[in-house]
Amino acid sequence: MAPELKRATAGEAPFLAACARRRSHYTPVWIMRQAGRYLPEYREVRSRVDFVTLTRSAELAAEITLQPVRRFALDAAILFSDIMTPLQGMGIALDFEPGPVVRTPIRTAAQIEALPTLEPRRDVPFVLQAVELIRRDLPAGVPLIGFAGAPFTLLCYLVSGRPSKEFGTARAFLYAEPDAAERLLDKLADAMAAYLAAQAAAGAQALMLFESWGGLLAPAQYRRFALRAARRTLTALRPLAVPLIYYANQGTALLEELSGLDVDVIGVDWRTPLSVVRRVLGEKAVQGNLDPAALFAPRAELERQIDAVLAEAGPAPGHIFNLGHGIWPETDPSAVAHLVDYVHERTAAARGSRA
Amino acid sequence: MAPELKRATAGEAPFLAACARRRSHYTPVWIMRQAGRYLPEYREVRSRVDFVTLTRSAELAAEITLQPVRRFALDAAILFSDIMTPLQGMGIALDFEPGPVVRTPIRTAAQIEALPTLEPRRDVPFVLQAVELIRRDLPAGVPLIGFAGAPFTLLCYLVSGRPSKEFGTARAFLYAEPDAAERLLDKLADAMAAYLAAQAAAGAQALMLFESWGGLLAPAQYRRFALRAARRTLTALRPLAVPLIYYANQGTALLEELSGLDVDVIGVDWRTPLSVVRRVLGEKAVQGNLDPAALFAPRAELERQIDAVLAEAGPAPGHIFNLGHGIWPETDPSAVAHLVDYVHERTAAARGSRA
Repeated sequence: MAPELKRATAGEAPFLAACARRRSHYTPVWIMRQAGRYLPEYREVRSRVDFVTLTRSAELAAEITLQPVRRFALDAAILFSDIMTPLQGMGIALDFEPGPVVRTPIRTAAQIEALPTLEPRRDVPFVLQAVELIRRDLPAGVPLIGFAGAPFTLLCYLVSGRPSKEFGTARAFLYAEPDAAERLLDKLADAMAAYLAAQAAAGAQALMLFESWGGLLAPAQYRRFALRAARRTLTALRPLAVPLIYYANQGTALLEELSGLDVDVIGVDWRTPLSVVRRVLGEKAVQGNLDPAALFAPRAELERQIDAVLAEAGPAPGHIFNLGHGIWPETDPSAVAHLVDYVHERTAAARGSRA
Repeated sequence: MAPELKRATAGEAPFLAACARRRSHYTPVWIMRQAGRYLPEYREVRSRVDFVTLTRSAELAAEITLQPVRRFALDAAILFSDIMTPLQGMGIALDFEPGPVVRTPIRTAAQIEALPTLEPRRDVPFVLQAVELIRRDLPAGVPLIGFAGAPFTLLCYLVSGRPSKEFGTARAFLYAEPDAAERLLDKLADAMAAYLAAQAAAGAQALMLFESWGGLLAPAQYRRFALRAARRTLTALRPLAVPLIYYANQGTALLEELSGLDVDVIGVDWRTPLSVVRRVLGEKAVQGNLDPAALFAPRAELERQIDAVLAEAGPAPGHIFNLGHGIWPETDPSAVAHLVDYVHERTAAARGSRA
């Protein structure tokens, strides 16, 4: 570890404290896609190895996971992987161009029935080995977050076949073939439950479900399809001794629905004011939600934007600072360093503790 | 007109009544992008003429505007044009691939200062001639809606240079160059005010501002940039004797902000429950908001989805039925016919009037 990184090193990890809505020295911070293209050290590795190979090599995935933790005083690491990796393990053939393109989109009952069960130790052993390698090298106080795509978000790619602004084919599929859609979602929900449980068994200290596209649905469709399937995954994981995080992109209209979801933390995008999230979801911790675009502001304006997020979150414990969406590849790493240190200093000072 | 179309033909046009929150025989209905690619007669014209030529020919634009009104019992027509058409009139060079691509994106103060004023009669006379031609041929009871892109939505294309899922370049520009962004927005706001006023003078009976991308902004950024500029346009138009409609895509988090906007109608996408819109914006009419994907459902399910929208809107006057976003090119026109007739029959029956 670079000696200048100012992290809390004694007591409970701030990230885990915040998940449980307990106080810590400062507000913990990590960043969605913190291991990725905005980092020169990532681009260096990537220049030698294609993306799929990176996700399927335990050593390289571990190295990339650790890169941002070495550079910034982040309070959590997140496994470097892709939400489609377990589906490749289930025999789905796909290419990254750079978004995932499914060679044979899944649109019939027969294809859905033919989907095999995921057995993580057999089908994606490299992911679990990566978790073990990362845990060995992570500093104290920096827990590892395991993750998976939420079932409906995975359905979007499987049915539409490729990334899309609207995922129209997938959304039309829900209306045209609701029974087949539910069956596919059940299978994906069970597979992701097995996948996340295996990550926890390998050492992941928190589990996050990414609902990147559920916010495209009308609220009633969200309830019937996306939320029901996410709940199936999360219910299966609840007995495990790790906090559960559900991230809802474009989820402003869905907050009331989420209040009944048995998770520890709800992550939201930059469009949902944290004060509203806190009001609706008082019994949960909240994660977010600086606009990724704010990292392009001059320092003083960036600080003002960070202060605004902290003010929206309020002084109650249970706030994990993050961006509202993944960091953009064009971001200057020095802005990230400033963000992390500023959140720590500012919130430590507010609590009368030392960063 | 085909004789079988069942429209209200006596009294105030249902669309204008709803804009003013007055009762009519039934709930009026029109469909965003109703003149477009899902119609065989549109594709027939388009097979002979490229898109830009269509938008710059008064006769062809008028013909295409009228096509859906001939086929379905729609209660309003909307001018066939593109939100970028007036910017072409201001000298912005662009191509449609098929989304608008700006050959030289606008990112400097010098480029912004150099933008000329829009003089609609000089710069886009064919649009105003189209309005006149359409009005001549529209049946009684079917008003013509003129429209423009909201200033921030236009800024997204001008700064990013091309369509984008996130319009990251434009959003980063707001943080990095807020003063230049405000100056550009002011110029666009004034140009769109002149453009819409000219459409009204030529015969448009309602004016709609499309805020397609304002919902990408964090609420504070929305207030500072998008809403301020939209208000500048709308305030200039308020003295005109036509109803004003503001459509906010992805606007769920912005409803409170919109309550202060002096317009007659707020249009929302399929993700914002109309009951919430009605509660927050009680003094305005509301337009929307069936999911465009619902048109791919079997008839019985489509009817259930329409019923759900009508139930959310409630019995008070001031609801204009529409989709929550533009109709998709893959949509079956017979589903549209069913939608329009079903909304009329259902709401006429509920009021004890005859469709």
